[in-house]
Amino acid sequence: MPGDSEATKRRLLDAAAREFAAYGIAGARVDRIAESAKANKAQIYHYFGSKDELFDAMFNEMVAVTTQEAPLDPLDLPGYAARLCDGFEENPYLGRLAAWYRLERAETQAPLESIARANRGKVERIEAAQRAGKLPDRFSAPDLLALVVTVAGMWTALTPEHNELLGTRTPEHRRQVVVDAVTTLIGDL
Amino acid sequence: MPGDSEATKRRLLDAAAREFAAYGIAGARVDRIAESAKANKAQIYHYFGSKDELFDAMFNEMVAVTTQEAPLDPLDLPGYAARLCDGFEENPYLGRLAAWYRLERAETQAPLESIARANRGKVERIEAAQRAGKLPDRFSAPDLLALVVTVAGMWTALTPEHNELLGTRTPEHRRQVVVDAVTTLIGDL
Repeated sequence: MPGDSEATKRRLLDAAAREFAAYGIAGARVDRIAESAKANKAQIYHYFGSKDELFDAMFNEMVAVTTQEAPLDPLDLPGYAARLCDGFEENPYLGRLAAWYRLERAETQAPLESIARANRGKVERIEAAQRAGKLPDRFSAPDLLALVVTVAGMWTALTPEHNELLGTRTPEHRRQVVVDAVTTLIGDL
Repeated sequence: MPGDSEATKRRLLDAAAREFAAYGIAGARVDRIAESAKANKAQIYHYFGSKDELFDAMFNEMVAVTTQEAPLDPLDLPGYAARLCDGFEENPYLGRLAAWYRLERAETQAPLESIARANRGKVERIEAAQRAGKLPDRFSAPDLLALVVTVAGMWTALTPEHNELLGTRTPEHRRQVVVDAVTTLIGDL
């Protein structure tokens, strides 16, 4: 029954996101993922190959969904940053998974081609808009993308010692700071 | 011989920084730290209490050194960001340790009072400069500090998929992007 195996894979990917977000790649336990997905370890190895490959499958999917939900329009980079910021608010796993990815996977293994391809496309669109004189070029396209992505994720990267200073900031306030900062960084034509 | 115990503590703190930077808090192994420091596990428990307390001692010290090497002058926030950025370049452990701290410690344990105190002092100085009309107040003081710190650490937070797009950026180029971005964010009086 193909429907069953798709449903099992779906539950395994969801359980993997929860487990990896909490414990990282080295700390994640395949038996906990299987139990949480009401499956067994053999199914994980059958569908995904290994714990590392399960992480890659889950992370690749999350990048694809994020790219789809927050497409980059080079003429509306503040809107792009706002959607990324909303994504981090709505899915608290996202910021943690990205951090584990950088710490545990990124430096030791080959880059995920899906992420590299998505980034190349974004830089090309920003460059084209700058060449067409529709977007200021105070920063080069790769630097500008780096700044926009960094600022969009700024609230996931602060420690509680910093957040306590920010008091009762609402998600709307946090998004507005991101939008204002990106607008300011782009500057006027 | 007090000299000996100080030297042993020093070697343990240095070995702890290497081990925690590589494997995080859960993944760090006390026996590897002891071996790398030419000490033994009993000395770690004697001097620091536990693996978690060793992490806190090491991290507290690193925050104190960073705060000393990059003091915040509210009238020169671009310079402050440049020094933070240099610190990340010179000490590649720093970005990784801060990321592990957020992922593994920050959400489950009490904030480190040393970090909270340092942040409160920085926000107060920025606020005072804004009230005195010496620093633009487009962003509130806590938001501005959050932006400055985020941008200063931007190059530690990118994935290799992004860095490959940046090509052969030099440390000088990276620092200049940080300085230009912070200068732009502050704006004119």
